Amino acid sequence: MNSPLRQASSLPSTGRHFLQIPGPTNVPDPVLRALAAPTIDHRGPAFAELARRVVTRLGPVFGTTGPIALYPSSGTGAWEAALVNTLSPGDRVLCFETGHFAVLWQELAERLGLDVELVPGDWRHGADPATLAARLAHDPQHRIKAVCVVHNETSTGVTSPVPLLRRALDEAAHPALFLVDTVSSLGSTDYRHDEWGVDVTVAGSQKGLMLPPGLGFNALGPRALEAHRTARLPRAYWDWDPLLDTAEHGRFPYTPATNLLYGLDVALDLLAAEGLPQVFARHARHAAATRAAVRGWGLTVLCADPRAHSSTLTAVLMPDGQDADALRATVLDRYDMSLGNGLGRLAGRVFRIGHLGQLSDLHLAGALAGVQMGLAAHGFPADPAGLTAALDVMSAA
Amino acid sequence: MNSPLRQASSLPSTGRHFLQIPGPTNVPDPVLRALAAPTIDHRGPAFAELARRVVTRLGPVFGTTGPIALYPSSGTGAWEAALVNTLSPGDRVLCFETGHFAVLWQELAERLGLDVELVPGDWRHGADPATLAARLAHDPQHRIKAVCVVHNETSTGVTSPVPLLRRALDEAAHPALFLVDTVSSLGSTDYRHDEWGVDVTVAGSQKGLMLPPGLGFNALGPRALEAHRTARLPRAYWDWDPLLDTAEHGRFPYTPATNLLYGLDVALDLLAAEGLPQVFARHARHAAATRAAVRGWGLTVLCADPRAHSSTLTAVLMPDGQDADALRATVLDRYDMSLGNGLGRLAGRVFRIGHLGQLSDLHLAGALAGVQMGLAAHGFPADPAGLTAALDVMSAA
Amino acid sequence: MNSPLRQASSLPSTGRHFLQIPGPTNVPDPVLRALAAPTIDHRGPAFAELARRVVTRLGPVFGTTGPIALYPSSGTGAWEAALVNTLSPGDRVLCFETGHFAVLWQELAERLGLDVELVPGDWRHGADPATLAARLAHDPQHRIKAVCVVHNETSTGVTSPVPLLRRALDEAAHPALFLVDTVSSLGSTDYRHDEWGVDVTVAGSQKGLMLPPGLGFNALGPRALEAHRTARLPRAYWDWDPLLDTAEHGRFPYTPATNLLYGLDVALDLLAAEGLPQVFARHARHAAATRAAVRGWGLTVLCADPRAHSSTLTAVLMPDGQDADALRATVLDRYDMSLGNGLGRLAGRVFRIGHLGQLSDLHLAGALAGVQMGLAAHGFPADPAGLTAALDVMSAA
Amino acid sequence: MNSPLRQASSLPSTGRHFLQIPGPTNVPDPVLRALAAPTIDHRGPAFAELARRVVTRLGPVFGTTGPIALYPSSGTGAWEAALVNTLSPGDRVLCFETGHFAVLWQELAERLGLDVELVPGDWRHGADPATLAARLAHDPQHRIKAVCVVHNETSTGVTSPVPLLRRALDEAAHPALFLVDTVSSLGSTDYRHDEWGVDVTVAGSQKGLMLPPGLGFNALGPRALEAHRTARLPRAYWDWDPLLDTAEHGRFPYTPATNLLYGLDVALDLLAAEGLPQVFARHARHAAATRAAVRGWGLTVLCADPRAHSSTLTAVLMPDGQDADALRATVLDRYDMSLGNGLGRLAGRVFRIGHLGQLSDLHLAGALAGVQMGLAAHGFPADPAGLTAALDVMSAA
Repeated sequence: MNSPLRQASSLPSTGRHFLQIPGPTNVPDPVLRALAAPTIDHRGPAFAELARRVVTRLGPVFGTTGPIALYPSSGTGAWEAALVNTLSPGDRVLCFETGHFAVLWQELAERLGLDVELVPGDWRHGADPATLAARLAHDPQHRIKAVCVVHNETSTGVTSPVPLLRRALDEAAHPALFLVDTVSSLGSTDYRHDEWGVDVTVAGSQKGLMLPPGLGFNALGPRALEAHRTARLPRAYWDWDPLLDTAEHGRFPYTPATNLLYGLDVALDLLAAEGLPQVFARHARHAAATRAAVRGWGLTVLCADPRAHSSTLTAVLMPDGQDADALRATVLDRYDMSLGNGLGRLAGRVFRIGHLGQLSDLHLAGALAGVQMGLAAHGFPADPAGLTAALDVMSAA
Repeated sequence: MNSPLRQASSLPSTGRHFLQIPGPTNVPDPVLRALAAPTIDHRGPAFAELARRVVTRLGPVFGTTGPIALYPSSGTGAWEAALVNTLSPGDRVLCFETGHFAVLWQELAERLGLDVELVPGDWRHGADPATLAARLAHDPQHRIKAVCVVHNETSTGVTSPVPLLRRALDEAAHPALFLVDTVSSLGSTDYRHDEWGVDVTVAGSQKGLMLPPGLGFNALGPRALEAHRTARLPRAYWDWDPLLDTAEHGRFPYTPATNLLYGLDVALDLLAAEGLPQVFARHARHAAATRAAVRGWGLTVLCADPRAHSSTLTAVLMPDGQDADALRATVLDRYDMSLGNGLGRLAGRVFRIGHLGQLSDLHLAGALAGVQMGLAAHGFPADPAGLTAALDVMSAA
Repeated sequence: MNSPLRQASSLPSTGRHFLQIPGPTNVPDPVLRALAAPTIDHRGPAFAELARRVVTRLGPVFGTTGPIALYPSSGTGAWEAALVNTLSPGDRVLCFETGHFAVLWQELAERLGLDVELVPGDWRHGADPATLAARLAHDPQHRIKAVCVVHNETSTGVTSPVPLLRRALDEAAHPALFLVDTVSSLGSTDYRHDEWGVDVTVAGSQKGLMLPPGLGFNALGPRALEAHRTARLPRAYWDWDPLLDTAEHGRFPYTPATNLLYGLDVALDLLAAEGLPQVFARHARHAAATRAAVRGWGLTVLCADPRAHSSTLTAVLMPDGQDADALRATVLDRYDMSLGNGLGRLAGRVFRIGHLGQLSDLHLAGALAGVQMGLAAHGFPADPAGLTAALDVMSAA
Repeated sequence: MNSPLRQASSLPSTGRHFLQIPGPTNVPDPVLRALAAPTIDHRGPAFAELARRVVTRLGPVFGTTGPIALYPSSGTGAWEAALVNTLSPGDRVLCFETGHFAVLWQELAERLGLDVELVPGDWRHGADPATLAARLAHDPQHRIKAVCVVHNETSTGVTSPVPLLRRALDEAAHPALFLVDTVSSLGSTDYRHDEWGVDVTVAGSQKGLMLPPGLGFNALGPRALEAHRTARLPRAYWDWDPLLDTAEHGRFPYTPATNLLYGLDVALDLLAAEGLPQVFARHARHAAATRAAVRGWGLTVLCADPRAHSSTLTAVLMPDGQDADALRATVLDRYDMSLGNGLGRLAGRVFRIGHLGQLSDLHLAGALAGVQMGLAAHGFPADPAGLTAALDVMSAA
């Protein structure tokens, strides 16, 4: 018989694994323990109270007072939900190619029967409001029904300026829906669904919300709800209808992921205890420290726009001829740390450092020390000034 | 600040809650503890090993050597997956109205754009092979593309004879796909995907597999895989393609529900340690004991066909004029036990006793004692011979 | 390599073990999860706050406003602590032979160099105040320095009337210290250290406090503290001195059992949420139900004095010629329930049912069903009226 | 109502606390989860198997094939046990003042009525074999009955050469018992009870064994067992007698700390999986890295003898006029890390870095980064070359 707990916790390791991919993130101990509470009746009063509480408390994290649909799914499911609830077969959707996940979302839209137009990108810059404005100007008949943007590209560490993109839509008086993926930014970065005029915000549990994977979210604006009434893509599992008033009655149309909701309740406590502004400042500080380290080592941050640096992950370009995946394997093998790999066109050329979710200064220091030692072990003479610079950033706070 | 662990575990209770709904079931302690292991990199080698192991070991539970698709979803998602992977818009699907969940699946099929024909039923009998044969005889052009049957109706405690239904299809030489929902039977009742010629088997995590909700499953037969190649319902999240070889490489197309897989690994250990035949015999014994109790109390088992009794739950008809939901509320309030409610047309007239998943003789005895005391408290003079009869059934084993 | 979690949780079992020995008791789930919180610095501020909180909140459970010494030890250690802190070599101690644990405490006292006088008993009655009065009347020189009584004999299910024994001491104006063992009554039965004039109360963690074993307690009255100043038995580990003001500063003289204190904190929450009077009433009700079952089965409760029945356990005499240990083995093997064995002179003749700590009506019903079925399997024709009578007692509440 | 889990896990922290005191140590996750398994009957067969297994597997960690007595106690209790089982009132005991804990053990011995002679020390060197030899030479009548040495002084980070001290005893042909405290070395440093001729080895659970506090140990040599027969200090709780054959029958004389034994079982798995030689090498490497950091920062390691450096902790002298406790408070407040304080005569002048138990290179790097940043925040211009030097030591491995 197998002993899965052991294998899952990498037994011969001498400590807790450093999970520095850009999600799933290091789940806080109180959240992990909450997952182990006995499952309860999802139609009973105790569950209803839990469901109401977590959905209500999610609102401030999304920056919305509107409904939030919560699915037993991955973030990919929440992408699909955003589309099938608002669009009809053949509808045109404008996507910005900011990186691998933007491309995946676009492909998913195509598979659902949408007519997707992709604005190409170099994977080092965010979606450009001027480009959007220009494209909208050429759509006087409003054939574009939705604009899809990834707020924080998990594959590149590049953000897109959601408020400015919204302004471009407004200035064009274009009725397209504005759908935003915040999978790797929500709960880590300032985000305001209502104030920024987003119609559907897509998120998942396993990043800034500090949970294991298994929950997908859609925050819904009034225009999305209106579109929902006439949208004709087939939908059943993802239909928002029975999810619109969970905050009120605490019920779900099918069995929800009970134990993840226990964890979510604790995670929301943790975010509230630290304070969202403090959480965002911490992420920004850790991102700055990480970039300082990267530059100190003599490496290049992938993101080429200083205004677009992600607070939650940093993608690092390896020098030509160096295999980023070999480095990652070294780091995993010698230092029991997982780093993110280069995705799509960046495969082998980039590694990604996740610095989101639960993360302390010392934990990040350990992670950066691991990259620094890993680079050395891999044959790249990383200047120790890298780590020192990161500590300086953190010390200055 | 809230203290969710407390509320979730119903603090003022004097003991562990009795979760006797027909799922989610009482999750074993080792499974709960496994859920609390730190989340790991879903693209790293340790995870791949875990994924391969659990998917491989699921095969014997489904009775298949073919692929099993595993989703972060509820069982409802697995229903949707079975349909969108095998059918095209407008395809005719034949459903048997064996109870509330059969109706829900049918409704879901309609929402996806399928042409559903419902064979009516009285919710007290399973799907009838002769009826199926007769219907197929009137479909010489093979307009019916799929037959959907619920193996074990969670709303009624009535099973349908899967092998005999298969035989009706075979004898009619009808090519319709055979899709079977085993959400509340898998892992508790003998089931043989391959041997019984099922094309897609639908299941979820929160019943016989003894996990919290959050995983959906499709076991895939060769004819289903063939249909998958030409099926034209839009599909993305649910697409089987990237899930066909998880057993081999241990990868998923999007972030899987890592911590539920930890639990699944332990649950599979538990099933293997007890032995599937022993697990099935235990469920049958507990079901017989429960029916003996029901009859001893002077109440009626909803299932009207002795060959069709469910091993995993028993639906009990209250006498006319008695409110089953009031009884359930009494039982919850006084004895901290959740019973299943009557669903759909059975609302208020029926309560359901779940006796599946992890369950010992003494636990069931306590549960039945709670029903007996609850009936008395509710004003129904339940004969104590009911519990005695149940103990006699268990003692005889 | 071994897989202890599995073995410890009795893997092939089909449910949670029924731990119906009179302690350790079934530990509540929230307490178990609390044990798994990371260990912290026992000299840091977070720990000090925890320690102050738990020691302060223990006061009402003991019925005292005085200091409580808390040890990393078993209850046996707390016995030793009570003696070495108050007595000097050769001091005379009067013990009442109410059962096996009273004898063990007496033997421990002898091994420490005390001069122990044992008042013999038949193990079916508690300590008799009249006997104590008579003995004190023959001690005009006050050679007896301490009277040791077990409040609730864990080996017999017989209690002793602590207030009446105190009155005997008072009426004799005898200065002997009054030391009371409440290991299996504290937190389950009304107990009032201050009001009843007890000098040292001895307790442990693994019974009514619903924790795993590993903590011992001494509640200290003013006369005990006075005696402590001049007592000359050697003492170091057990010395009360550095433990007198834990409630104030939250420090311990040596490393305390941190994680058990986490559990104690939660256990105190649970007791407070239910309310101590409700906790005591529940235990009394469960004890009455258990005795009703025993009599209904045609067996004899060991305790021969109706005023002395324990609320926390019931010792049951088997008919002559029947081996109680064989019955227990049958119950463990067939029904995965642990019952207490006969100790000392009761070995093989008695089995004990623990009904203390966390226990619900349904859990007790299951346990009693297990005894009833076990008796039948063992060849004793237990009348099913036993369980019915127990349910009647519980229903009446 | 309080919410202790939250407070215990320091809720507003942004990550897992860094517990870098020299014990309790960071408890591995699988050990923590094991603690949460339900408590079982300590007199039943499953427990006996567990007890036999853990006691048997402790042997190699102590380097003994003899009996090991295991107590529900702190390490202080194990000190007391070593003395009361082998000595008689007034026996002379020779202690070496290597630091604070050596002094505490000596004081404990005095309180038990022993005649203690203390060899003074400067707290920067270990016990000197030549001094021992000289002292023994002046004891021709063998009035010294026991020599007590602390293998690894937790207050100073200085070790004593156990084999050389044994040789001094042998060369003097002196029959004194040799009692060694390994509380902060066992399981982290090479130690050989049998081979080195130690008579009683004292240990606890919360350091190299990676458990929470709550278990004390005595490993017993043949001469200690012989002395035990005639020793006359009063003993009851600590008596070795009923503990001598736990490895054989798995029983304890009183209720053992069940859940800590679950944890011990897993901790022994972890040590076996890594391999004791690898565990020792890891500790040595981390100690060398830490000393390199200390020197790089421009600070002084307290231990003045290069042969005596501890593998498990490093005590660091602050420059004159700098308050080590203020530094520790800064580090705790800003970086959520606990460091050990200066004890006894070192109060305020020293801080201690624990690097024992479960510890990975990256975790240590984070801890040292925290000290470096803390020093800077405290106003001490720690040269960043300190951390770089530590990484170099770790990288070289």
